[in-house]
Amino acid sequence: MTVPKITKVVLQAIRRSKKPLSKGELVQITGLSLATVTEHVERLIRSQLVTDLELGQSTGGRKPRLLSFNTEAGYIAAIDLESTHVHVGILDLTCSIIISRSRLIDVSQGPKAVLEQIKELLFQLLDESKIDQNLIKGIGMGLPGPVEFSTGLPASLPIMPGWDRYPIHQFWSQYFDCPCFVDNNVYTMLLGEHTVDSISDIENFIFLKVGNGIGAGIMVKGEIYRGASEYAGNIGHNNICHDHLCYCGNRGCLEAIAGGRAIARKAEQIAREGKSTILKEVLKIKGKITIDDVKFAVREADPVMVELIRESGFQIGSVLAGLVNFFNPSLICIGGSVAEIGDVLLASIRQAVYQKSLPISTRDLVIRSSYLGDKAGIIGAAVLTAEKIIDDSLIRTKEGTYSI
Amino acid sequence: MTVPKITKVVLQAIRRSKKPLSKGELVQITGLSLATVTEHVERLIRSQLVTDLELGQSTGGRKPRLLSFNTEAGYIAAIDLESTHVHVGILDLTCSIIISRSRLIDVSQGPKAVLEQIKELLFQLLDESKIDQNLIKGIGMGLPGPVEFSTGLPASLPIMPGWDRYPIHQFWSQYFDCPCFVDNNVYTMLLGEHTVDSISDIENFIFLKVGNGIGAGIMVKGEIYRGASEYAGNIGHNNICHDHLCYCGNRGCLEAIAGGRAIARKAEQIAREGKSTILKEVLKIKGKITIDDVKFAVREADPVMVELIRESGFQIGSVLAGLVNFFNPSLICIGGSVAEIGDVLLASIRQAVYQKSLPISTRDLVIRSSYLGDKAGIIGAAVLTAEKIIDDSLIRTKEGTYSI
Repeated sequence: MTVPKITKVVLQAIRRSKKPLSKGELVQITGLSLATVTEHVERLIRSQLVTDLELGQSTGGRKPRLLSFNTEAGYIAAIDLESTHVHVGILDLTCSIIISRSRLIDVSQGPKAVLEQIKELLFQLLDESKIDQNLIKGIGMGLPGPVEFSTGLPASLPIMPGWDRYPIHQFWSQYFDCPCFVDNNVYTMLLGEHTVDSISDIENFIFLKVGNGIGAGIMVKGEIYRGASEYAGNIGHNNICHDHLCYCGNRGCLEAIAGGRAIARKAEQIAREGKSTILKEVLKIKGKITIDDVKFAVREADPVMVELIRESGFQIGSVLAGLVNFFNPSLICIGGSVAEIGDVLLASIRQAVYQKSLPISTRDLVIRSSYLGDKAGIIGAAVLTAEKIIDDSLIRTKEGTYSI
Repeated sequence: MTVPKITKVVLQAIRRSKKPLSKGELVQITGLSLATVTEHVERLIRSQLVTDLELGQSTGGRKPRLLSFNTEAGYIAAIDLESTHVHVGILDLTCSIIISRSRLIDVSQGPKAVLEQIKELLFQLLDESKIDQNLIKGIGMGLPGPVEFSTGLPASLPIMPGWDRYPIHQFWSQYFDCPCFVDNNVYTMLLGEHTVDSISDIENFIFLKVGNGIGAGIMVKGEIYRGASEYAGNIGHNNICHDHLCYCGNRGCLEAIAGGRAIARKAEQIAREGKSTILKEVLKIKGKITIDDVKFAVREADPVMVELIRESGFQIGSVLAGLVNFFNPSLICIGGSVAEIGDVLLASIRQAVYQKSLPISTRDLVIRSSYLGDKAGIIGAAVLTAEKIIDDSLIRTKEGTYSI
């Protein structure tokens, strides 16, 4: 059954709104006539996707009925997988988080083992929130690397052995009777961040993820820009002036010097050499240094670690500077697990961008940390899923038919 | 007078078509009903922008009348200014060149002197082609650097003293009663190249201009991507690994090592040192070396000059490689006066891009020379102008009213 496009336009407007809407407001937002809005709203109320129980303020005559999305019409399971951990959440169809949790995970164990662990966590959250498994209307999943979005198949990635073109949606179809969308988590973070009020009107912005890997999500005119092969934003292997060998086989890659893994490796080296008092102690106790130890040392103002992060930030900013000249964005949001280090990293990224970009390219540019932090990925995965299941009329009722 | 948008949709469809169209074909292209198409076609015929004199092939009944743009309804003056030369052309409203010519010019003489010389050349072309000055319906001009397109004002550029925010449209309004549009000529070249049959369906591509300066025009979904401050594509000052001081004050800029001016300077140095037999002779006769001398030496297979161009191409390709990872384009067209050197430059650009980009980012990428060569700029300036005057209903008749 194909659904009239106008119903979807009306539904998306109601879903995206942060507050209940009157029909008059819907007319303004959608540009449709009152008669058309009324017809489609009635259809949506019958399908139980929209409720009109609340009453608005009277402007003289009858109090207008206010329309809002029926948040209990269904839920989305959203997964944000990183190379060392995963965030899992259950969100309603307006993409508000009902429950979410993180756990450590190792993507190099391969898709089967990792997906099993994610599934366990997801069922635990369903259990705790008392949400019926059949009310999950879509699954959105972000991966820490390039994904061919149209097929949902991951691209080959050295850090993720066994994931190359693994059919993730097939795994989930064993447990859920709903569509599944898989995407690069830089794109889902971009979509998540775009839901923030002060950002949602910005048409062209870059979300920069600094985790173990470094990648960019690009928005043009409010939509994800994916590129010719759907792999746009893959800047972790952009060249900078150094000679380190990267796992990709090239020398001089950004990730090989400024990604989380590279930073931890250098910090461990520094700890071994006894140059950082804090990390020397940590190394003695744990036998290794992780990016979390580096974060701790920076918070404790360890000067050697602060300097290491400054250098990494400057290298990241140097690559960004070229992209700023090219793309002339309004906004760069910086997120990802390494970005949680905060101001030291952000300041050095800014310094390099403003020093190395042309002044006319940075005139209208804001560079700041992600508002949503580690929630950007699951919120974005839910946005992606909610938009797709409404646009493609994929919301299923218990009876197995489409509900609109 | 505002013009119904549908009339413009019908007119643009007729204007863009490479062959006369029947009303049935217009219905297919525009998605409008036959009644609507007929109504607006009649309006366009009355305004003399469209003619229906040709007869199509009968499919049984009455022979259909074929519609085409009335190429004599008006003309566009298109100007492509470079730092050392200018191309001027008169094109009809379908953007076919009626007459065009180039001449040497020095932009550093400032806008008044330069515009006077361009005006002289333009009037000479009007005279030779016997086109009435009043039939010029729009002027499109490309400049070799950033322009704030919405105001038509050039940005500050060290190589163009006196041009900073100079009101070029005011100069032309002394001589022509029609709108004037000024843009970065990388964008007009991009638009020009996009008219080529095999390219016009490509949604995301980069036009790279290698002249004295190096810049990129970016197309997303068939439209110029301009960025937050309208200065996107300004990659001539992207950083590469070298220590040369650039006129912008930074070190390591691409243009300072691989732009036409930088190449000519290095070639002169090489000639002075006697390392190139050909250029040593040229230097003796002319007292200096220009980029045209380098082109000549490369054509004559001077090994030192071939090596110099290879190095420059590799540096350009290294910057492009990062942009390919970021933007994942389908196509990069390379044009501009230095690009006329041809295969040696193109091959070394390709080599660097394929070596330094990620394989998944180049999977669907074609890199090739501009088809239109030094005509891309004036054709694109005409396209920009034709689209704007029709979209904004700015075509004026002799009586001073809008003709549609």
